Amino acid sequence: MRTDSVMLSMFLLLTGLDACFVGVPLDTGTSYRSGARLGPRHIRQESSLIRPANSILGVCPFEDLQVADIGDVNLNIYNLPEAVRHIKAAFSKIIANGCIPLTMGGDHTITYPILQAMKIAHGTPFRRAAEEGCLDCNRAIQIGLRGTIYTTADYQWARDQGFRVVTARECWYKSLEPLMAEVKSMMGDRPVYLSFDIDGLDPSFAPGTGTPEIGGLTIYQGIEIIHGCRGLNVVGADLVEVSPPYDVAGITSLTAANLLHEMLCVLPGVKKS
Amino acid sequence: MRTDSVMLSMFLLLTGLDACFVGVPLDTGTSYRSGARLGPRHIRQESSLIRPANSILGVCPFEDLQVADIGDVNLNIYNLPEAVRHIKAAFSKIIANGCIPLTMGGDHTITYPILQAMKIAHGTPFRRAAEEGCLDCNRAIQIGLRGTIYTTADYQWARDQGFRVVTARECWYKSLEPLMAEVKSMMGDRPVYLSFDIDGLDPSFAPGTGTPEIGGLTIYQGIEIIHGCRGLNVVGADLVEVSPPYDVAGITSLTAANLLHEMLCVLPGVKKS
Amino acid sequence: MRTDSVMLSMFLLLTGLDACFVGVPLDTGTSYRSGARLGPRHIRQESSLIRPANSILGVCPFEDLQVADIGDVNLNIYNLPEAVRHIKAAFSKIIANGCIPLTMGGDHTITYPILQAMKIAHGTPFRRAAEEGCLDCNRAIQIGLRGTIYTTADYQWARDQGFRVVTARECWYKSLEPLMAEVKSMMGDRPVYLSFDIDGLDPSFAPGTGTPEIGGLTIYQGIEIIHGCRGLNVVGADLVEVSPPYDVAGITSLTAANLLHEMLCVLPGVKKS
Amino acid sequence: MRTDSVMLSMFLLLTGLDACFVGVPLDTGTSYRSGARLGPRHIRQESSLIRPANSILGVCPFEDLQVADIGDVNLNIYNLPEAVRHIKAAFSKIIANGCIPLTMGGDHTITYPILQAMKIAHGTPFRRAAEEGCLDCNRAIQIGLRGTIYTTADYQWARDQGFRVVTARECWYKSLEPLMAEVKSMMGDRPVYLSFDIDGLDPSFAPGTGTPEIGGLTIYQGIEIIHGCRGLNVVGADLVEVSPPYDVAGITSLTAANLLHEMLCVLPGVKKS
Amino acid sequence: MRTDSVMLSMFLLLTGLDACFVGVPLDTGTSYRSGARLGPRHIRQESSLIRPANSILGVCPFEDLQVADIGDVNLNIYNLPEAVRHIKAAFSKIIANGCIPLTMGGDHTITYPILQAMKIAHGTPFRRAAEEGCLDCNRAIQIGLRGTIYTTADYQWARDQGFRVVTARECWYKSLEPLMAEVKSMMGDRPVYLSFDIDGLDPSFAPGTGTPEIGGLTIYQGIEIIHGCRGLNVVGADLVEVSPPYDVAGITSLTAANLLHEMLCVLPGVKKS
Amino acid sequence: MRTDSVMLSMFLLLTGLDACFVGVPLDTGTSYRSGARLGPRHIRQESSLIRPANSILGVCPFEDLQVADIGDVNLNIYNLPEAVRHIKAAFSKIIANGCIPLTMGGDHTITYPILQAMKIAHGTPFRRAAEEGCLDCNRAIQIGLRGTIYTTADYQWARDQGFRVVTARECWYKSLEPLMAEVKSMMGDRPVYLSFDIDGLDPSFAPGTGTPEIGGLTIYQGIEIIHGCRGLNVVGADLVEVSPPYDVAGITSLTAANLLHEMLCVLPGVKKS
Repeated sequence: MRTDSVMLSMFLLLTGLDACFVGVPLDTGTSYRSGARLGPRHIRQESSLIRPANSILGVCPFEDLQVADIGDVNLNIYNLPEAVRHIKAAFSKIIANGCIPLTMGGDHTITYPILQAMKIAHGTPFRRAAEEGCLDCNRAIQIGLRGTIYTTADYQWARDQGFRVVTARECWYKSLEPLMAEVKSMMGDRPVYLSFDIDGLDPSFAPGTGTPEIGGLTIYQGIEIIHGCRGLNVVGADLVEVSPPYDVAGITSLTAANLLHEMLCVLPGVKKS
Repeated sequence: MRTDSVMLSMFLLLTGLDACFVGVPLDTGTSYRSGARLGPRHIRQESSLIRPANSILGVCPFEDLQVADIGDVNLNIYNLPEAVRHIKAAFSKIIANGCIPLTMGGDHTITYPILQAMKIAHGTPFRRAAEEGCLDCNRAIQIGLRGTIYTTADYQWARDQGFRVVTARECWYKSLEPLMAEVKSMMGDRPVYLSFDIDGLDPSFAPGTGTPEIGGLTIYQGIEIIHGCRGLNVVGADLVEVSPPYDVAGITSLTAANLLHEMLCVLPGVKKS
Repeated sequence: MRTDSVMLSMFLLLTGLDACFVGVPLDTGTSYRSGARLGPRHIRQESSLIRPANSILGVCPFEDLQVADIGDVNLNIYNLPEAVRHIKAAFSKIIANGCIPLTMGGDHTITYPILQAMKIAHGTPFRRAAEEGCLDCNRAIQIGLRGTIYTTADYQWARDQGFRVVTARECWYKSLEPLMAEVKSMMGDRPVYLSFDIDGLDPSFAPGTGTPEIGGLTIYQGIEIIHGCRGLNVVGADLVEVSPPYDVAGITSLTAANLLHEMLCVLPGVKKS
Repeated sequence: MRTDSVMLSMFLLLTGLDACFVGVPLDTGTSYRSGARLGPRHIRQESSLIRPANSILGVCPFEDLQVADIGDVNLNIYNLPEAVRHIKAAFSKIIANGCIPLTMGGDHTITYPILQAMKIAHGTPFRRAAEEGCLDCNRAIQIGLRGTIYTTADYQWARDQGFRVVTARECWYKSLEPLMAEVKSMMGDRPVYLSFDIDGLDPSFAPGTGTPEIGGLTIYQGIEIIHGCRGLNVVGADLVEVSPPYDVAGITSLTAANLLHEMLCVLPGVKKS
Repeated sequence: MRTDSVMLSMFLLLTGLDACFVGVPLDTGTSYRSGARLGPRHIRQESSLIRPANSILGVCPFEDLQVADIGDVNLNIYNLPEAVRHIKAAFSKIIANGCIPLTMGGDHTITYPILQAMKIAHGTPFRRAAEEGCLDCNRAIQIGLRGTIYTTADYQWARDQGFRVVTARECWYKSLEPLMAEVKSMMGDRPVYLSFDIDGLDPSFAPGTGTPEIGGLTIYQGIEIIHGCRGLNVVGADLVEVSPPYDVAGITSLTAANLLHEMLCVLPGVKKS
Repeated sequence: MRTDSVMLSMFLLLTGLDACFVGVPLDTGTSYRSGARLGPRHIRQESSLIRPANSILGVCPFEDLQVADIGDVNLNIYNLPEAVRHIKAAFSKIIANGCIPLTMGGDHTITYPILQAMKIAHGTPFRRAAEEGCLDCNRAIQIGLRGTIYTTADYQWARDQGFRVVTARECWYKSLEPLMAEVKSMMGDRPVYLSFDIDGLDPSFAPGTGTPEIGGLTIYQGIEIIHGCRGLNVVGADLVEVSPPYDVAGITSLTAANLLHEMLCVLPGVKKS
């Protein structure tokens, strides 16, 4: 039968693309309920309902940008260090071609090698990226943290680095438009990377994830975060931690497919029609 | 075994009913995920938990009105034009008997022949009804539109006809009571038809539908829309697009059964007890 | 195989515990969709993701209190009166040991014998407890009532007893922090029992229950109710009506496990770290 | 909405029926996974695919017999002794009208009061029926017993009474036609009652039951058992232990609906066409 | 996002292919539970586990034949007559290129236009194909018929045409190798078309179909039927009636993907290695 | 809450046990659909229906042997080589205590370190164990191999080593009692290890596994294989590849729990009662 996307090598024909969707089917970093390795294929499947224009933003991204789904990064899930090197290499090629990657995870482990490839300041939660100095910590922000934690000092490390930490509790009952206005001025015109962990949403909106946590963001807030990036110099984005085995009736994959389309709609170069 | 509702002809004993529940098990108009043809039977099944009184409105509709479930319209799903004629004929009979129909769909195609049978001004989304002049476009309102669309001009046609269009985005984080107060003054005492597409709700509240779309109305807003019709001259209503094959654990059918009961509670003649 | 919790007798080693989790796998009182008898085992299963500290309250309850899961009350589901006697006896023993019970139901029937064992004033909805005079009705409050009811006078009985009744409709679109501030002053430093029926939440947050009812509380409000009890003299709490057969993908059990942890975090003696 | 079958009283119009389908929605006797109370409504729902003629037997039962679904026995699930009296009374009325009942359970508890109403010799597994002397133990046969048991003597009691016990192990890899030929000569022309517990089938064929047990009968054997009753003086039959909450995709209810139709096809008076 | 297979036009690059997989996502002919329109995409998804060689037959079809998945036939599901014309035209093109089509349905309606395109004698169940004289009825065989039917004469029409009809009942407990040996001599070296309706299998093996029917073929028999076609002049084959909305955990789509691979392995030109 | 089995260290109190159940929650070796790491907890959960005696074999193993569930091996799923060392160490301790391990996987990777700990000849499919010379290849047998493979020579390696290979195709329509009689004479009284991969069963019996493959063994054959080991010198056994995320309604875990109980019943020292 047709070669399946899980086995696709990275396509070579990157020349001329402004942006691309790319899958990274890796979940070796997941401790409890795995399955995010199947995220890219299920997100693609649920993307078939998506139409070209965005009714809230009033944009048609496919008219303004050359966009393609370039398949999945070729990797070996049994060898995490090697897989991480492959991811970094693949994204270096994408970026060298001037193409903005919109990545379908996979678990949150994949954001680290992507950031290494980008070598830019960003708002990722990973400690190692900060330690390597490839993070402009004063422009990093984390939104939606919550849940039981290991010690009450867990969020302090991020704050000590200079990260802005906004807990989910601070977001309840509120539009996030004011917060995103703040983000805008914090970021200026320097490069921004958006890493969206689907478990930032409340399980009522996104049950299909490995570590669901009650009290999360609403879908309205999730969309506002992405829309709030319009006008920023977004150089890449990812959507991670969709776990299809726990995604009854496909609603979480559908949500992910829509959020990836929203990300596309806020990229530089997409114009109001 | 007992004759199944799917095969029921329209009952003849309409005389004396003030309102009726009636099913229209048609989904031939659905392009992607079908299944709404099974809506009436699953909504009926989940209705068994519904008790007579309404705790918010403080009414007991079965004390004030003669109400019955008159079964399903008899139709041939392989012949859409003929099915549409059968629906129109069936609803003409219901209306001729002075009975208000509360219809269980089926997909949104069914609203068009019902409106033809009613020949009244109303707020349906269907272009053809407007073109036939059986629509008082200045009293038409659409609430909850959203999602990716084919072109950025998609909502413009409705607005050009004089429809009031309220996108889902305009509804986020808000009670819809102020909006419904506006609707009330817009409608006056002229006849009103309420068509409720279950996919107007966010998929977190109603996943069991053919084209789920993120960012929709909350269940609280859905109830407010119906309650906001209390005092209007409601001459008919429908609830469409429940798709049982995608309704895991029956929550969407349950929601539909409750919303139909809410519709019954706002009909003219139902009194506060 | 290992003795299963369903068959566990009450453990004897209660001495020295400040609080305990205890299961009461009884659902004989359920009229429609049963299954809550399996609640304790599924809540335990979904509790494996819970980490020790609470990120919102900033507490580590296991550092301040001696806590254990003492298994399930041993009972015969075929003999409701006998089962009720067993529950009462078991909880009398727990209380006699100075241990605060956090109970996993089971259906709401179980709260009545627990209250009898406690012999304190509390906010349970059960009429018989009030009639027996073991209820301080002026300190009783019910939050989240809604749905179709048998007669429009259904809530009046509770109000006539002096209960404070707050319908779900009164809670829509609001933080419940102001309400909980009121509760705090109403309760003073007298003993408080918290009975949390999972169907108080909207089905979008907790579909896995026997009688789901649309228009319920959000998870944010549920957490606020529990957090609002911090500082009160909480002498016991329960979480009832989780029905695993209807809990697709385990989200309701997960929610219950988290809410029980939140309850633990507001017990007297848990200190901010 | 339409009166639901769960609340249906026994219909009065029994006169003239040769056979009837009747539901007994009781599962109070179930110790572990309940849900069989919902069996009748789900079996009815899945019966909508059944067409009138039987392709194997070559019969059209509705042409030869007057048959109706007379609804559910009205009973109180909280009071098992009273429920049992109601079942017995209802079936006495059915039999007094010369009507053969084909019963949809409910759990296996319901067979006992049905047998009391019949007062005939039969092949039920219930000890009490035997003790009451309303069992002709030399004509009783149990097929498909298997699984872990409490002691190795568990089947001995039945054998001591004179029951023929055929374990599932004895049935593996075999057509049951030879066994049913034996049954035919054992039964002669005396009255026969057929009680079919759906968990006699292997879980691969009928997963939706409270106590699934591996190594059971195949569906082919299940049909052969029923077909083997053709020519016997069948005076009643039941199909019990379908538990819809565990019946993913409705296959078990569908199977039950088909087996009930097969039972109808072997009743005395149904002729080869 | 990536163009979805549902929207794929027929690829033009047919030259040089010996065989192809092709989807026909049409289910307009389904009366009860629809969903087979989603069959091709789910079968493709579950095909990702399939490896190149066949362990029973000892063949590697991809070494002997040029094979590709050429996507889905482009069709309009709202216009059945037009859709049928499109299917016929698409298959005429495939055949004109000397390519053997292995078709993924869709419902059984699609076999008729495929047969028209082939203009060969074959074993399809459709009456119209026989009436058009494009059927060599003496070489037609139907295997696995069963279930309730409309009249006891339902199978007679096929027999009257000269079809060989083998009911499922005749297949119970048996290997079908002897039957397939008969088929081989009946067919000789004239062209053979194999139409495999997944509901021919028992629901325990293939629950995900629109009209499941108990008592069907085992998967072992299904494989034997396909393997029995090895050595015949197979000019085309289809696998129809997989309905993904009813295919819990994807087992039916997985089964279909495997059976399609088995079909490929018995095509002329595939050699034992 | 109660310490969860996933986090349990190996218990120390092994002295005096004749046999134990032990979990190895590792699935890092799974390439496609993971989830077997959750196998031990779900198998334990579904074991609650198991009663002490075995109705086919007529034995009560708990009367003859001291048996306990000793929890899960403590391991780090991120470091496969280290995990393998931990498994080997844990099983060495179990064996040194004279205790027979009945292991709940986990994926099939876990069998290799268990075998290393045993250092005995056995019938595992793993090439490395054979190469290390800890396999008496002339006493090794593999039953139920099937499905698509990478090359037609895939089974040849095992045969070249002297393994007896019995494909699933050779088992269709047959009791495996004759085969197991052969096995018995092949094994003599030397130590035997039984590794049961649940995907050896057909997906109709065990859908909840990572790589389901059609055409597998029936449950009847699975039980016969285990029963056929009665009388052999069984020194250990495992049941692997149960993947709960794909185990709709828990039937596969239930099957696994039963098969583990069957394994216990055939251990040396269990006597007919």
